Amino acid sequence: MPLAAYLWRRIRQLGVQSIMGVPGDMNLELLDYLDDDGLEWVGNANELNAAYAADGYSRMKGCPGVLVTTMGVGELSALNGVAGAYTEHVKLIHIVGTTGTGAQKARAMIHHCLGPNPDHRIYSKISGPVRMAHCWLDNAKTATAEIDRVIRVCYLKSLPVYIFVPLDFTHVPVSASSLDQPLTITPQTDDDACASAVNAVIDRIAMSKTPSIVVDTLVHRFGATSILNRLLDQLDIPTFTTPMGKSIVPEDRSYFHGVYNGQVSLPGIASAIEVSSDLVIDIGFLHSDSNTGGHSRLLTRVFQALTTDPIPRNLLRRRIIHLPTPSVPSDEDAKHITQSWIWKRIGAMAQPGDIIIAESGTAQFGFSDAVFGPGVQYITQIYFGSIGYSVPACLGAAIAQREMGSEAASQRPGRTILVVGDGSLQLTVQEIGTMIKLGLKNIIIVVINNNGYTIERAIHGPERGYNDIATWNHQLLLNTFGDKYGKVNSRVVNTKESFEKVISSPEYLDLASIQLLEVIMDKMDVPWRLKAQIDLINQHNTRITKQDNGV
Amino acid sequence: MPLAAYLWRRIRQLGVQSIMGVPGDMNLELLDYLDDDGLEWVGNANELNAAYAADGYSRMKGCPGVLVTTMGVGELSALNGVAGAYTEHVKLIHIVGTTGTGAQKARAMIHHCLGPNPDHRIYSKISGPVRMAHCWLDNAKTATAEIDRVIRVCYLKSLPVYIFVPLDFTHVPVSASSLDQPLTITPQTDDDACASAVNAVIDRIAMSKTPSIVVDTLVHRFGATSILNRLLDQLDIPTFTTPMGKSIVPEDRSYFHGVYNGQVSLPGIASAIEVSSDLVIDIGFLHSDSNTGGHSRLLTRVFQALTTDPIPRNLLRRRIIHLPTPSVPSDEDAKHITQSWIWKRIGAMAQPGDIIIAESGTAQFGFSDAVFGPGVQYITQIYFGSIGYSVPACLGAAIAQREMGSEAASQRPGRTILVVGDGSLQLTVQEIGTMIKLGLKNIIIVVINNNGYTIERAIHGPERGYNDIATWNHQLLLNTFGDKYGKVNSRVVNTKESFEKVISSPEYLDLASIQLLEVIMDKMDVPWRLKAQIDLINQHNTRITKQDNGV
Repeated sequence: MPLAAYLWRRIRQLGVQSIMGVPGDMNLELLDYLDDDGLEWVGNANELNAAYAADGYSRMKGCPGVLVTTMGVGELSALNGVAGAYTEHVKLIHIVGTTGTGAQKARAMIHHCLGPNPDHRIYSKISGPVRMAHCWLDNAKTATAEIDRVIRVCYLKSLPVYIFVPLDFTHVPVSASSLDQPLTITPQTDDDACASAVNAVIDRIAMSKTPSIVVDTLVHRFGATSILNRLLDQLDIPTFTTPMGKSIVPEDRSYFHGVYNGQVSLPGIASAIEVSSDLVIDIGFLHSDSNTGGHSRLLTRVFQALTTDPIPRNLLRRRIIHLPTPSVPSDEDAKHITQSWIWKRIGAMAQPGDIIIAESGTAQFGFSDAVFGPGVQYITQIYFGSIGYSVPACLGAAIAQREMGSEAASQRPGRTILVVGDGSLQLTVQEIGTMIKLGLKNIIIVVINNNGYTIERAIHGPERGYNDIATWNHQLLLNTFGDKYGKVNSRVVNTKESFEKVISSPEYLDLASIQLLEVIMDKMDVPWRLKAQIDLINQHNTRITKQDNGV
Repeated sequence: MPLAAYLWRRIRQLGVQSIMGVPGDMNLELLDYLDDDGLEWVGNANELNAAYAADGYSRMKGCPGVLVTTMGVGELSALNGVAGAYTEHVKLIHIVGTTGTGAQKARAMIHHCLGPNPDHRIYSKISGPVRMAHCWLDNAKTATAEIDRVIRVCYLKSLPVYIFVPLDFTHVPVSASSLDQPLTITPQTDDDACASAVNAVIDRIAMSKTPSIVVDTLVHRFGATSILNRLLDQLDIPTFTTPMGKSIVPEDRSYFHGVYNGQVSLPGIASAIEVSSDLVIDIGFLHSDSNTGGHSRLLTRVFQALTTDPIPRNLLRRRIIHLPTPSVPSDEDAKHITQSWIWKRIGAMAQPGDIIIAESGTAQFGFSDAVFGPGVQYITQIYFGSIGYSVPACLGAAIAQREMGSEAASQRPGRTILVVGDGSLQLTVQEIGTMIKLGLKNIIIVVINNNGYTIERAIHGPERGYNDIATWNHQLLLNTFGDKYGKVNSRVVNTKESFEKVISSPEYLDLASIQLLEVIMDKMDVPWRLKAQIDLINQHNTRITKQDNGV
């Protein structure tokens, strides 16, 4: 079979149904083979958006997100999106259509090349640090093994990989024999090592009187969410998530006690873990600043454990933690929409099957206070923190949700609720057009209009011009990007009451069309967590400066 | 003075007035010093757009375009725009605000870093191939010399450079003494070598009976346009430009004979140069495929020369070349707007001081047929050919035009005429919001609406779904992005007559506001040059395939 046909067949076997990307003269023939396997071409508005969308798709479906770009121009435009997937451990397969091998050898100055006497493979060197593996399909004999190898790495490490396809190799015949069996994508484990690890964990829990569990993001990335949740239900030990781990643990469980984010946690949480626990099991951790309250966790006993065996009775350490009631926000009674109110409210509006996508900025800080019902999934990019991520990630997640809905038709169709600030929206807004093009009806776009980059105003230069943005008419976005009924589907609210009314309307509870809700908020209002984290950073910086000065 | 103040003062001395970029927590304090030197912060919608805008600004003003981003997320998003500047020899200074040196040494997992145990300087390695020089401002003693060094390289090579500013060095005091004299940015020349080069050229011309001159893009990039034009006027030798060199030579000169693009040229041009000339002077060349008719130039005698000395009489080789009249296009009489008509028409509508920006795609191929009046400047990205370039480049050029207009207030204010297809527009559309935010009134946006990626339909898969795009309502774009009078300023035309009427209206001749003109064209109509180039490539590929197969 032709090489391109093999590639797509293999990718289809992984459960991938939709392919992101932008067409270009060096990948068009590659795309011709998509239909053969029932793969759907998304056709994004640009390549950065395609990468973000593939990231969102992968987070929802568990299989890799796949994007196709053209050498150089498209490939580099996608780079920041791939870097985000690398940093946040998301499975991506980035397929790049390149010049033919003849032009490469001749170092011909073909369009999209870099400078005079160009090395056509320079771009594959540039992307080295943001991927775990790559291959060049320039040898018909080894190509299928190479494809299988990099896909396997993608799964085992849960990281991006690249596949480069020279124009002249798109159609070369390759052996299809290895397609007969699905790819082995699970890690090989050493039974003895595994058993001794499990025993070590059991021993530690057995010795512990007041254990706690902290669940973090890599549990999700390595596909261990349901295994872990069966374990947690048996253990019944006080459990927390990090900001990045939020929504992995069903938040209605009695053993769940909220988000642990170092000193930037609700009252009582840090001390319940750091002081009152004699054992903390930190599972699937990723200790970035914004996932640890700016590195303000005070933990000395940390190790990682994971088992699916039945739990011996003597390990049960049921313990009820009584957290103090958080203090009432001073603007509790405000009629206008406040930071202290909106995140919990959006959290509460989400129903089983819904996805919440939060943009970097106030939304990301605010949502740690929301309580999600069971079956609500949460996507946000906390460690890499690239503004603009959320809009295309919403597209990818909504596509995945539609595919998974039709795979499990009995369930209520879930909604994808995007929460994005007016500043971040501007970076990637055109992907709304792709949502409309694909007829995705399951999306609610909540635009927080607080007149610029509020998170940056909180950090520095509150009234500086560089934190202002162009003033857009958000009410026209849906119409502009192709929704004929965009006017009806767009609303603006500036009070809690009007917000309540919209989100409880039949149009919002049972989506028949994409919806846009613009929420007017004060430009200086910020979540308490953001303020607390900035205060911590400033204290830290002051300390560092003093040290540098020998104080 | 503080380090950041030195940096901006030096940049202001170069003639730079506007700074592109997106604010981020790692560059905010750097931006605080902008005002001190009267520099204006543009505030782009995203970083790729900022890089493209800086590129357009530099092409117009001759000084570097400057952009500011945040480590990682912003820096990588801009990479493709910087790569384009590198490939097309445009001066850029990319300033990146990074984590502090303490966090770098500790390899702390700060947001925007890459993976676990992160090397904070990994991104500066990634961008190595797309720049000519860089510096890290992490030493107060050497910082000012480092700034001066990389700016000098930026000019001497006409290529991008990077300046990395760690957070903790923004305010450190540095010596301001070197600011007293402007930076030396002209190359040191060896007088003897120069004289012998000039003599060599003079000798060759003296020996030649039928010389021709081909003017290419690097003349513009190295700031030699006016010097060269004085020389051309004296020499009065038949002169051509390449597609990338177009608009460097005033097209009303009797010695100017059009665009030389290998076999993809108007009738008679290739043979006038390749057959009838005994000497071809190829000045400032850049021999990429799309600048040479797909490498179809048949030249054996090529060399490069440039002099400003008075030309000896015996060098005059005045020669009138009589080119055959191009054949009349078969759709000459069409009432609807055709590819064979529109480019010449837009070329003719441009007046002295106007800029035409053409997007990659049909516009870029089509404009080689247009004749520009004197004082019309042309910007397009032919070698790198990244779709989406033109919209932000238009912003940058329009800003430069406004600045240059106020510097030379006597002239009629020029217009920036952007010509972009509906497909390419989608990649970077949000930069229209920045044009409106800045109150730029000198812009006409011509959107060629031909229902998708027409250039790709011509290359492969004319009816394939991957060449379709989301259907937008272009008439709402100005309103959406903040122009209150956007409705009045937006028009759609589908006949030559209605197009004529709009472009000759007072609103278009004397711009008081940004204008958008949507031009409906057939999705399968393409410029003859595009078709000719594709035919050549296909012939070439067939030949290569036969060679590969031993035929």
